[in-house]
Amino acid sequence: MTNFSRSDEFLRLSDGEIERLFEEDIRFGDLTTRALGIGDQPGRMSFTARQDMVLCGSDEASRLLSRLGVHVTFTAKTGSRAAKGSLLLAAEGSAAMLHMGWKIAQTMMEWASGIATMTHEIVLAANVGAVHIPVLCTRKSIPFTRQLSLKAVIAGGGEIHRLGLSDTIMLFAEHRAFLDKSDDIKNAVMRLKARVPERAVMVEVTSEADAWLAAEALADVIQLEKFEPAAVQRIVKQICKRSDNRPLIAVAGGIGPKNAADYVRAGTDTIVTSAPFYAKPQDIQVRIEKL
Amino acid sequence: MTNFSRSDEFLRLSDGEIERLFEEDIRFGDLTTRALGIGDQPGRMSFTARQDMVLCGSDEASRLLSRLGVHVTFTAKTGSRAAKGSLLLAAEGSAAMLHMGWKIAQTMMEWASGIATMTHEIVLAANVGAVHIPVLCTRKSIPFTRQLSLKAVIAGGGEIHRLGLSDTIMLFAEHRAFLDKSDDIKNAVMRLKARVPERAVMVEVTSEADAWLAAEALADVIQLEKFEPAAVQRIVKQICKRSDNRPLIAVAGGIGPKNAADYVRAGTDTIVTSAPFYAKPQDIQVRIEKL
Amino acid sequence: MTNFSRSDEFLRLSDGEIERLFEEDIRFGDLTTRALGIGDQPGRMSFTARQDMVLCGSDEASRLLSRLGVHVTFTAKTGSRAAKGSLLLAAEGSAAMLHMGWKIAQTMMEWASGIATMTHEIVLAANVGAVHIPVLCTRKSIPFTRQLSLKAVIAGGGEIHRLGLSDTIMLFAEHRAFLDKSDDIKNAVMRLKARVPERAVMVEVTSEADAWLAAEALADVIQLEKFEPAAVQRIVKQICKRSDNRPLIAVAGGIGPKNAADYVRAGTDTIVTSAPFYAKPQDIQVRIEKL
Amino acid sequence: MTNFSRSDEFLRLSDGEIERLFEEDIRFGDLTTRALGIGDQPGRMSFTARQDMVLCGSDEASRLLSRLGVHVTFTAKTGSRAAKGSLLLAAEGSAAMLHMGWKIAQTMMEWASGIATMTHEIVLAANVGAVHIPVLCTRKSIPFTRQLSLKAVIAGGGEIHRLGLSDTIMLFAEHRAFLDKSDDIKNAVMRLKARVPERAVMVEVTSEADAWLAAEALADVIQLEKFEPAAVQRIVKQICKRSDNRPLIAVAGGIGPKNAADYVRAGTDTIVTSAPFYAKPQDIQVRIEKL
Amino acid sequence: MTNFSRSDEFLRLSDGEIERLFEEDIRFGDLTTRALGIGDQPGRMSFTARQDMVLCGSDEASRLLSRLGVHVTFTAKTGSRAAKGSLLLAAEGSAAMLHMGWKIAQTMMEWASGIATMTHEIVLAANVGAVHIPVLCTRKSIPFTRQLSLKAVIAGGGEIHRLGLSDTIMLFAEHRAFLDKSDDIKNAVMRLKARVPERAVMVEVTSEADAWLAAEALADVIQLEKFEPAAVQRIVKQICKRSDNRPLIAVAGGIGPKNAADYVRAGTDTIVTSAPFYAKPQDIQVRIEKL
Amino acid sequence: MTNFSRSDEFLRLSDGEIERLFEEDIRFGDLTTRALGIGDQPGRMSFTARQDMVLCGSDEASRLLSRLGVHVTFTAKTGSRAAKGSLLLAAEGSAAMLHMGWKIAQTMMEWASGIATMTHEIVLAANVGAVHIPVLCTRKSIPFTRQLSLKAVIAGGGEIHRLGLSDTIMLFAEHRAFLDKSDDIKNAVMRLKARVPERAVMVEVTSEADAWLAAEALADVIQLEKFEPAAVQRIVKQICKRSDNRPLIAVAGGIGPKNAADYVRAGTDTIVTSAPFYAKPQDIQVRIEKL
Repeated sequence: MTNFSRSDEFLRLSDGEIERLFEEDIRFGDLTTRALGIGDQPGRMSFTARQDMVLCGSDEASRLLSRLGVHVTFTAKTGSRAAKGSLLLAAEGSAAMLHMGWKIAQTMMEWASGIATMTHEIVLAANVGAVHIPVLCTRKSIPFTRQLSLKAVIAGGGEIHRLGLSDTIMLFAEHRAFLDKSDDIKNAVMRLKARVPERAVMVEVTSEADAWLAAEALADVIQLEKFEPAAVQRIVKQICKRSDNRPLIAVAGGIGPKNAADYVRAGTDTIVTSAPFYAKPQDIQVRIEKL
Repeated sequence: MTNFSRSDEFLRLSDGEIERLFEEDIRFGDLTTRALGIGDQPGRMSFTARQDMVLCGSDEASRLLSRLGVHVTFTAKTGSRAAKGSLLLAAEGSAAMLHMGWKIAQTMMEWASGIATMTHEIVLAANVGAVHIPVLCTRKSIPFTRQLSLKAVIAGGGEIHRLGLSDTIMLFAEHRAFLDKSDDIKNAVMRLKARVPERAVMVEVTSEADAWLAAEALADVIQLEKFEPAAVQRIVKQICKRSDNRPLIAVAGGIGPKNAADYVRAGTDTIVTSAPFYAKPQDIQVRIEKL
Repeated sequence: MTNFSRSDEFLRLSDGEIERLFEEDIRFGDLTTRALGIGDQPGRMSFTARQDMVLCGSDEASRLLSRLGVHVTFTAKTGSRAAKGSLLLAAEGSAAMLHMGWKIAQTMMEWASGIATMTHEIVLAANVGAVHIPVLCTRKSIPFTRQLSLKAVIAGGGEIHRLGLSDTIMLFAEHRAFLDKSDDIKNAVMRLKARVPERAVMVEVTSEADAWLAAEALADVIQLEKFEPAAVQRIVKQICKRSDNRPLIAVAGGIGPKNAADYVRAGTDTIVTSAPFYAKPQDIQVRIEKL
Repeated sequence: MTNFSRSDEFLRLSDGEIERLFEEDIRFGDLTTRALGIGDQPGRMSFTARQDMVLCGSDEASRLLSRLGVHVTFTAKTGSRAAKGSLLLAAEGSAAMLHMGWKIAQTMMEWASGIATMTHEIVLAANVGAVHIPVLCTRKSIPFTRQLSLKAVIAGGGEIHRLGLSDTIMLFAEHRAFLDKSDDIKNAVMRLKARVPERAVMVEVTSEADAWLAAEALADVIQLEKFEPAAVQRIVKQICKRSDNRPLIAVAGGIGPKNAADYVRAGTDTIVTSAPFYAKPQDIQVRIEKL
Repeated sequence: MTNFSRSDEFLRLSDGEIERLFEEDIRFGDLTTRALGIGDQPGRMSFTARQDMVLCGSDEASRLLSRLGVHVTFTAKTGSRAAKGSLLLAAEGSAAMLHMGWKIAQTMMEWASGIATMTHEIVLAANVGAVHIPVLCTRKSIPFTRQLSLKAVIAGGGEIHRLGLSDTIMLFAEHRAFLDKSDDIKNAVMRLKARVPERAVMVEVTSEADAWLAAEALADVIQLEKFEPAAVQRIVKQICKRSDNRPLIAVAGGIGPKNAADYVRAGTDTIVTSAPFYAKPQDIQVRIEKL
Repeated sequence: MTNFSRSDEFLRLSDGEIERLFEEDIRFGDLTTRALGIGDQPGRMSFTARQDMVLCGSDEASRLLSRLGVHVTFTAKTGSRAAKGSLLLAAEGSAAMLHMGWKIAQTMMEWASGIATMTHEIVLAANVGAVHIPVLCTRKSIPFTRQLSLKAVIAGGGEIHRLGLSDTIMLFAEHRAFLDKSDDIKNAVMRLKARVPERAVMVEVTSEADAWLAAEALADVIQLEKFEPAAVQRIVKQICKRSDNRPLIAVAGGIGPKNAADYVRAGTDTIVTSAPFYAKPQDIQVRIEKL
């Protein structure tokens, strides 16, 4: 699984973000440890996979533990597949600091690995025979989590559909509502290309008729919103691709590990999904012991 | 449903947090709107429930739309029950600003209402006959979302179990690992009470034997981690409560809408859960039209 | 000049950014005003163009003055052409607050209008006959000024070439240096399209030979770096465009108001420039008088 | 004095907070050093106690000096008792950096040690014979200093009474003013326990009559506001404690090193105080010499 | 008392700073209000002086209450003299919001008014007969409070001695330690004037001999550190002033309301003090009642 | 050129500022590197001067590259003169990180060195024979860049005229407009000296008549705004200096490398300029190669 093993190279949470996690949880330390008077005791903490998963969040966990003065002795790579029972992270430090970092690190890794793992499941489902269809995640991540959510997507072998509203052109019906003729996709695409010719023009359509209009308008990407695989197949069969394989067909709306393969078989070029953002967290066991 | 209808009074996202949402998504505006040249057109945007839900996030949606210069004409209250088809928020403004606010507002409300709704389902499940057991959510919220996650919990009728590590005493086995005698719960509780006598001492136990030790140690709350309802019932029946109903019995671990009632019937005093943080988002329809 | 008159709709400096400007200059007020004891005197302040310009920064100036409690009575629109002598902004308030806002507002408008005006000059130069070539500004803005710099570009009628490194694909020779065969543009473009098929693939070339390789590789945009107009013309004449007008020809490197038309005549599809970021500030006169 | 010697383990100022201190004082360096042209000269700086004190702030001083590139060669521990004349911190670096860090470090240590030392004085005063009564500091710290103020309290052997409004239940008369019957403490406590049963319910009372009502209401903590020791003693003698020593008696209002022992002798269970936040700063001598 | 009545015009806490105060205390609301279920009740809150004071912090209190949705009906001016019993601020709002803002507002006003009042006492003490000597406060404010501390100083009729290290030239012996001849004040002052001729050169001296060297060196300000009034008088009598009254004599070190007049009588030109930063907070009574 | 070689000692960009640069450009990594799958390849990057320059920004470039995990092997000093072709910075790291840091580092160094180099040109021009006149830069830096702009000024041998509005007294006609008699400079200066006697009083004048009024008023600095050298000379010849060389004559308005010497010859004491803030960026070549 080398193709997604170095996502840690690409997305970097700032130190400020790491410290936000402290602020959420441990602003005044672990009261229990302090009240017990055990803070100075040296200890060891290990994180182990309780189920097979694609790991994400271990770099950040390592960084946050280090900032607490904990010595991290092992970190599995973001994007690696971790089998049930395998070690993800190990660290040594004072009881005070181990307790302060424990749950923040655990919750972050469980959540991020949940996204990475489901993304990977969709990626696997999208590999039908020799065909490998890119899996692209939307900008509908849970509020405040955009950066780490997208890192987890990439860790799972996916890519980013849109970073936000400012980096891509996606023509919605809600845009066309403000045009003189809201059904004139051709004119809309022309205007978009005239103003921002470098960027790909993506058009979201919710009917086959609109898909044909988008194709005619020389859209770069036609995003079929909530189409059945059969309808996708009809479009794919009839569409006339240009020499550079444009227009690209993208499918979106309710696609996950279970039905991704159906769309691949129907001939889509890419899968667009928000499902991983709400994936179940992966289960990670933490053990803390006295040294 | 008055008891949770004013959570908006209690938890207030800072303006800086609101602006973080802009930074995640619309730093340089909606490229599509700008390239189409439709930004100045006046329009109307409405958010409608596509399913029954307990609403959360509408105050923040309203505040963020207002910051964009959009005029919000209607906002349903955080914590209110919204029936399928009911209006949640309505606003008027320029096409540019409506498009900039659309998805941020929608995603936030869908996510937060998901938490509120599942919390409320557990609250309803915990109402068995005349008994109303408090539902308390843990500090295991998704990273970076602590504040709005807990607001949603309260909107759904729940309360906060622990704000973080610094405000409550919770004795874990992982703390006792650093004591001379790690099974001496009594001594541990005494040390905690001597140092921080005002706060309630909560003890997490994973066996019935430890539950009895905690009771003997005069713990204020005994948190039963992953106990079957039958085991909970055994403990509740035999435990000797003090005149102030202490020790309180709390159950935690894998509790959600489906099994909450079983624990209530078993006699628990409170339910502790992390389930709502990973609730499915609620489905909200957005309509944008030209004025 | 309606086509770029509403850029203020699209790019919004956060309140936090506005307050950063205060922190840079007036953290402890205007010492001179305070020491003179004139702070309470009411006054009027006006900003007037000392030369013809395309205005930018007036919205932000208005917002920052308002935050100081100054009443802004007139604001010319961002993106509007202001003739020499025309009023740009007028405000009334206490002497203390007028003096606190004066130079911040003036310096910001002079600088941002400098960018907007030069961008507009290039836009005008790029209008040769009936041809209107888009003018796109790079990500090489002065450090810490990205957001307002790009707003000024749009105010001047330009658009954004790349928001940053994460939103567009631009294949540099410096990327190819890490491939097995650094001159195999075709293979590189294929890899890019396979992984991120939705986005346009832009290839920077510094020789005609590489331009042809990029065309053959089905690049979406071929960016000619520091090519003479004659060389551009040779390429444009011979290149075979696909039905969607791809590959697009972009020219970059040392292009400004004086030579833009040469490149348009040579047949380029777009102009890419960093020149406006270092434009001379426009001259704005400020008058302050007692009321 | 081991019991408070490791408070540095528990409370951690973020890097961002450390840099705020730079922003307050040395944003553009030490103008005098620069103008003299002596910045490159190597030097040594030492901080020495001019009076007996409990030290706080040395960790933060060490961190901020290190960020300036100064090599810290010795740091006395937060929470340690420093005798007059003893070394607190020693460092070597360039004249420029020593001068930049000097006063920030000194002022911080003098202030924080002032809080720690007075807290410790109250702790000592609260040790009457074999009785060791916990000293708890309120949330009335000087604005913007909460985190380091509370660290200093713990360094001095105290603990935190309330982190803020959100983590503890404290029933004030000002709350009861909004109830139907403002003198019905019993009903109020019942409502609080029903909604948030896990947390201790603290009730502030200003009369003996109310103290009895609070006891009857099964409050967990009864906080006697501005009671004379004699009145405290009357209440302690008559109150009926539950098996877990509840209700706890806390005294608050005007308590400091001089009168703490009187309240201990009167039988209070804890002392609640804001006095240390306004303690006189401790006197620390700084010597800087050329190397 | 007009001369210091409009300090609110000059120093402005950013919104971000205001929100930091919320973060310190009420991140998740007032748990007690919420648990009682009284949050929606309308109420009134008033702040009244319990002693004569110079007020500071009322603007900020008003702004923070307003941000909570509380309607402020009256605010006494920063810098005004408030007699015992006089109203400082009045507001109306929901019980939830009144309780959230209460203590933050009270603590801030008590602390800031403490600084303002003691500054004013020193200012009054420095008015001996017809002579009005400026009172200047140092940069030794309590960490994190620089901005509001200095506002309070100005509210009390004082001024700022040094904003920080970067804005003024103050030659300490600790600077001279790095010169070839550490006692050559003349050469040091010459170097300072050559490099930064515009700024006043201040020299701190701890002996009369050094004072004469500083005078000879044409220092602009000679700051006498911990000199007895008698010694000050000797220097003042003998020193030869230039036509612009330079060198100015400043006294510093242990000066407060009690001994300021002695130094004025001794002939000093200004008083430099850090005493107000550790002033006792002023006592402000808060009343909350149901509407 | 030793006198400005250690400016890096004096001005320190915070880590938060460094991370802002990442946020501007590489929030989600270099998409091209990631899509090519070359991120793990080791490489080397070097920055070389393409023209003679005074270097600035290399410290910050080094810090930001280090934060990305790149190993910096060489950094030329801020403030050093770099000849065309000389190495400025060299680093080794993964292709992913080199590409992420490349342009941020390059753009920052090119911009900052542009300011430093032009400042230095003015400094050289101000060295006429044996006379070395200080060159002081104003507070009119480009918005958001104050700190690094002023560092570059100092790197080039200049100094800071005013940090902002709060640290210096500069009497403008715009201040006098609020006085009873707006032409009474004498009275204004007296008021300023009475309130803030320590600081130098600077007076901006736009006519010779006002210059004489300012001199008579015992101003410390008379700033001649947009005076011809001949007029400056007239004033210098006739003005009566006090023994400490006050009043200082400063010239401002349109002064740059070309005309600075004229003003020095006319006898000015200092040169005040904003020109370097808009200097052309210096040209720096970057080479990236595979290791």
